[in-house]
Amino acid sequence: MKPINKTIRVFAPASSANLGCGFDVMGMALDGIGDVLRIAISEGDGLTIRNASAAELPEDIEKNVITPAVRAFMAAAGKKACLEIVVEKKIRPGSGIGSSAASSAAAVFGLNELYGRPFPLPELVPFAMEGEKLISGTAHADNSAPAVMGGIVLIRGYQPLDMVRLPVPDSFCFSVIHPHIVVSTKAARDVLRKEIPMREAVTQWGNVGGLVAGIMTGDLPLIGRSMRDVVAEPYRKGFIPGYDDLKSACLAAGALCVNISGSGPSVFALSDSIEKAQQVGKAMKKHFTALRIANDLYVSHIPSVGARVME
Amino acid sequence: MKPINKTIRVFAPASSANLGCGFDVMGMALDGIGDVLRIAISEGDGLTIRNASAAELPEDIEKNVITPAVRAFMAAAGKKACLEIVVEKKIRPGSGIGSSAASSAAAVFGLNELYGRPFPLPELVPFAMEGEKLISGTAHADNSAPAVMGGIVLIRGYQPLDMVRLPVPDSFCFSVIHPHIVVSTKAARDVLRKEIPMREAVTQWGNVGGLVAGIMTGDLPLIGRSMRDVVAEPYRKGFIPGYDDLKSACLAAGALCVNISGSGPSVFALSDSIEKAQQVGKAMKKHFTALRIANDLYVSHIPSVGARVME
Repeated sequence: MKPINKTIRVFAPASSANLGCGFDVMGMALDGIGDVLRIAISEGDGLTIRNASAAELPEDIEKNVITPAVRAFMAAAGKKACLEIVVEKKIRPGSGIGSSAASSAAAVFGLNELYGRPFPLPELVPFAMEGEKLISGTAHADNSAPAVMGGIVLIRGYQPLDMVRLPVPDSFCFSVIHPHIVVSTKAARDVLRKEIPMREAVTQWGNVGGLVAGIMTGDLPLIGRSMRDVVAEPYRKGFIPGYDDLKSACLAAGALCVNISGSGPSVFALSDSIEKAQQVGKAMKKHFTALRIANDLYVSHIPSVGARVME
Repeated sequence: MKPINKTIRVFAPASSANLGCGFDVMGMALDGIGDVLRIAISEGDGLTIRNASAAELPEDIEKNVITPAVRAFMAAAGKKACLEIVVEKKIRPGSGIGSSAASSAAAVFGLNELYGRPFPLPELVPFAMEGEKLISGTAHADNSAPAVMGGIVLIRGYQPLDMVRLPVPDSFCFSVIHPHIVVSTKAARDVLRKEIPMREAVTQWGNVGGLVAGIMTGDLPLIGRSMRDVVAEPYRKGFIPGYDDLKSACLAAGALCVNISGSGPSVFALSDSIEKAQQVGKAMKKHFTALRIANDLYVSHIPSVGARVME
């Protein structure tokens, strides 16, 4: 089967990695924010990527995260085609909500659809991770996995990649704010310690256990108590103006928990109703607006579906 | 209500702390092994503890783990009585399967029954932990909690004590072997690093997440993949003669996972049927017998009930 001259329009959601204690091992898809790609395949060989959005994207396709993801997919599928991809980038790069993962996930998901689904969904994640590798040097899955698969995903381990899709508790809603400040992924990594005290590590994995148990049983107070991070938040919060005040304001507005999304600067909160999530969102917006920092706010549910075909 | 001249006979099970990756945060009750206490209360004030077993117990009650546990209970309950406790100690002290926790748990559970259950079960755990504090200096809950509550317990955190009772997967069976070698808790602690690389910590909490998810969904292969420990097992296995060979033999006999129980020297394995657990137990026994190390083997299910009244 050699599909020729086919086109598809796909969406993949933004995502929030870490979820507090789940540093480098958990990620959650965010509904209502994401990248849209139109992918056309025709006979021949080659790849062109066109930017149809306001966001700045590299002119050189070798620097675009989509390129290694697409190449990994085509190589594994044993396909060759002339690919034209038009990117409607809705997530600002560097926001900490999985911008590169969304583009990469949309690309490999779209190709998989066009070629008649040669791969089950989880097997697309490693292709999408190639995009992450291009920008950060290492192939993390904590954004790619939820961008492809939706919901909340635990990355149990990498050798081999072992992902566990967790159920999304009913009425679980997020508020995410992206303040327009620049925190490089490298700076956010460099501020962390290379070694941590065993006692802190034990605290962290007790919380990871509690978070997973809370998610699996829909025990929202347990999720709130567990979503504490002692290894990254205390070191990265310095990048986010007034972080402690912001966190207090979100908790006062009803959030179950508040933390930094990925390596920041976005901050997310979880709430047990959309009304509370909206109140929390207001508190977030008020905080950054008072500091005269431009920002984008998103409030929605956690989608149980990740990458998808657009109607 | 002042109960006078009442007697009760209670049992609390042995337990296995850590479960591989869940170092210091997880524990599991072991059915079929445990300590039995006969507790008599009468008017007056005072505590006597009598040893009715072959195991050596301290003559001085101030050095018996039961004493601080009992005192903590009586103080919290606001009770005063003449207490006589007869201990049938079935778990050898220093075995790594929660010997002190079983005695402490049985004591506070029995008193709670005698006094008409002033405390719900989880509130007995901190009293039992006082016994742990006496021998190890710190009040851990990873043996006390399963000894009191049964099943598998996650200790999410200590400030305040936050325990999560996890469901026990059907057909989950253990094999535990206690080789009669002496490993002091202090030596087992001292061999561990005070700081660990962040990468190892991330590996560990990815596994903790996987273990909890596996337990909650009854996904036994996931449990097997997750029950890996990179912070204690590599350092403590040197205390256990031929540990790597033992582990290989257990896995070859069908175990889902094998690890050191608590700080050792007992070794436990989990299997998905009692038949496999028995095969694994045979492999364990063969190993230590070949090394001419006396040993006790236990094979059973994970009990969903912990401390209990004996008929």
